[in-house]
Amino acid sequence: MLEEMLAEAKRAQKLLAVSDAAHRNRALLAMATALSDRYEEVLAANRGDLAQAEATGLQGARLKRLELSEGKLQQLVDGLQTVVRLPDPLGMGLGLRQLNNGLRLEQVRVPLGVIGLIFESRPGVAVEAAGLTVKSGNAIILRGGHEALRTNTVLVALWREALGEASLPPAAIQLVASPDREYARALMHLDGLDLLIPRGGSGLIQTVVQEASVPVIETGVGNCHLYVDRHADLAMAVRILRDGKVGNPAVCNALETVLVHQRVAPEFLTMAAEALKADGVTWHGDPETCRLVPDAVAASEADWATEYLSLDLASRVVEDLEEALQHIGRYGSGHSEAIVTRDYETGRRFVDWVDAAAVYWNASTRFTDGFQYGLGAEVGISTQKLHARGPMGLEALTTTKTVAWGNGQTRDL
Amino acid sequence: MLEEMLAEAKRAQKLLAVSDAAHRNRALLAMATALSDRYEEVLAANRGDLAQAEATGLQGARLKRLELSEGKLQQLVDGLQTVVRLPDPLGMGLGLRQLNNGLRLEQVRVPLGVIGLIFESRPGVAVEAAGLTVKSGNAIILRGGHEALRTNTVLVALWREALGEASLPPAAIQLVASPDREYARALMHLDGLDLLIPRGGSGLIQTVVQEASVPVIETGVGNCHLYVDRHADLAMAVRILRDGKVGNPAVCNALETVLVHQRVAPEFLTMAAEALKADGVTWHGDPETCRLVPDAVAASEADWATEYLSLDLASRVVEDLEEALQHIGRYGSGHSEAIVTRDYETGRRFVDWVDAAAVYWNASTRFTDGFQYGLGAEVGISTQKLHARGPMGLEALTTTKTVAWGNGQTRDL
Repeated sequence: MLEEMLAEAKRAQKLLAVSDAAHRNRALLAMATALSDRYEEVLAANRGDLAQAEATGLQGARLKRLELSEGKLQQLVDGLQTVVRLPDPLGMGLGLRQLNNGLRLEQVRVPLGVIGLIFESRPGVAVEAAGLTVKSGNAIILRGGHEALRTNTVLVALWREALGEASLPPAAIQLVASPDREYARALMHLDGLDLLIPRGGSGLIQTVVQEASVPVIETGVGNCHLYVDRHADLAMAVRILRDGKVGNPAVCNALETVLVHQRVAPEFLTMAAEALKADGVTWHGDPETCRLVPDAVAASEADWATEYLSLDLASRVVEDLEEALQHIGRYGSGHSEAIVTRDYETGRRFVDWVDAAAVYWNASTRFTDGFQYGLGAEVGISTQKLHARGPMGLEALTTTKTVAWGNGQTRDL
Repeated sequence: MLEEMLAEAKRAQKLLAVSDAAHRNRALLAMATALSDRYEEVLAANRGDLAQAEATGLQGARLKRLELSEGKLQQLVDGLQTVVRLPDPLGMGLGLRQLNNGLRLEQVRVPLGVIGLIFESRPGVAVEAAGLTVKSGNAIILRGGHEALRTNTVLVALWREALGEASLPPAAIQLVASPDREYARALMHLDGLDLLIPRGGSGLIQTVVQEASVPVIETGVGNCHLYVDRHADLAMAVRILRDGKVGNPAVCNALETVLVHQRVAPEFLTMAAEALKADGVTWHGDPETCRLVPDAVAASEADWATEYLSLDLASRVVEDLEEALQHIGRYGSGHSEAIVTRDYETGRRFVDWVDAAAVYWNASTRFTDGFQYGLGAEVGISTQKLHARGPMGLEALTTTKTVAWGNGQTRDL
């Protein structure tokens, strides 16, 4: 089944690659209109998924992620409209060089080809990722969670109609509609797939990264730190800590560990413990933290390495900036790291030496996000260094090609 | 041993990353001076390698690749000087976005970190790759062929002196000096290595791509095609064919297969057979080629898929452009592909539809090369789509980091 899907998607992608931006944008606008006009169809399917999920015992954050609403659909519509307004990534020349012999070399941006996306419950991903895919001239094979199958089926049907309205081939968007896990595995070994992106929990991501024989971009695991320097504005540091830990603990740009300079630890930790008390945060502290924060539990080695994604917070008092940098170098996942300090030399050293997709100076890590970055949406947040780093938008879905315009040039004759 | 090397290299790399371009350029110039002034040391070591290689039976192209000469050293010196003149890749900002709340997001180019390079006999690679590495603020672990060990040892010693002269840490360039194959394998699994590049024959490349658990960029396999269209200037097509097949058959941008439109096949193949006769080219042809080219041997399926790297040439007569595109889509390795035609529509369709790092219209595939592209050198030619495609210069050795300059911004509070 997947081989056929890939062949169909490849044929469709070739047409998207040479289509003009106006047609691709028209498909996104048609999808935006469909989501606005026919939201009841989408929500009805979503209610079906929710009912079945509840019946099988799904609850809490996982159930929440599955749910769509008029408000969420409106956000997806806004996202599509933002992507429409972005420049065509395929229209950009990346430089031209003319050799002495007259050969003209032009580097151009071209689509990657066919992209696979394995994602978990959130069905909005099917709208965002496909929107970026179509705009950048690619095709996509979507493999969502089985609990969102009804919703994803309706969304993909709307997408295919939208492509048809824009005179583009509907086969550019494919849905693996079987809940069988074997298909996710087969996608990881689907020869000819140009890129596979796993989007979801760390279990899914690690499985894909380790198993796949097709090209993969690792996304989303965020063991993010806040370092509160001795020269920090402590009230600001508390706000940034609370935003990072409490704002939305289930996302990858949430904070997991706070590192505090020993000089300000007594004052800061007392303030922070007080501020986070009503939020129900559990502190996992080193001995010094445990001495200062009431009800803190002793942290073990595992706490430093854990992405809690919950109202748990690891806390460690450090001797100085260097110890903080070493801690981050050892346990950080290369996602987002923050420092609060008023001291220029300290801030500059942190920004220069921390090796991560995003480094924040006096701001919350929660800004690492495709919408905040102006990408309109994101297909994921890359935590690797190759190809793309941080939130991935249109450009991350392209590669380059060098076109050489000659009139008979040879090199050795 | 490798873990220690990596730790040393990482420490050195951190210093290179924050060094200014003037110091990095000074190291390259010091190496260029050392190669000019002390060429006798290098050539003496190389003679040692050559003598031993000959004694163990190495001959032909492999022996040739191992050999350095004053001329070759001069080319390496020129290459280093070109790289010095290129702009600092770390000095480039990639855009700044200020959010409504005043948070300033700046995307900057940063080094990848520590790069591993496994290469075969050519010792010049140790000069070129290390030059690009140092200029781009990275460290490198070199693992060359055992037959070039004396030469590589001297070259790395000169590099380390050059780094010292520029007040940069010599540990940024490391050489795996043991001929034991276990070290190459260990490099493929060296946790913390930021990128591993295999440079050599397809056996080496396939082993690294399939085995490595560290990030890899696939390089160098070039099953390159020339399509001679019915509207081709046939004399030009013969020159381009001869340049691609005979100029330097042992390299990845050499031609392996010629596809000829049926209408011009009798005339073109007769001309081409005549032109390539004195060069000793063996034709592996489809039935139609065999009918037209004296002494052609029948091609089998394997011939279409083979990168000969020798004076062998596969040849097939095709019905039209579409059949040529299908052939290239099926057997091409995504390296370099060429068309000769006077017809605009045909050329445009070839350029748009062929999916390869480089596509040539009326020019030889032999131009896919870091020097020709103005990169000064290359660490390899990527045949994959992610991260880098085609000749890899300074930019391919960088990634990005987003630095956010705030004054207390939070997202959800």
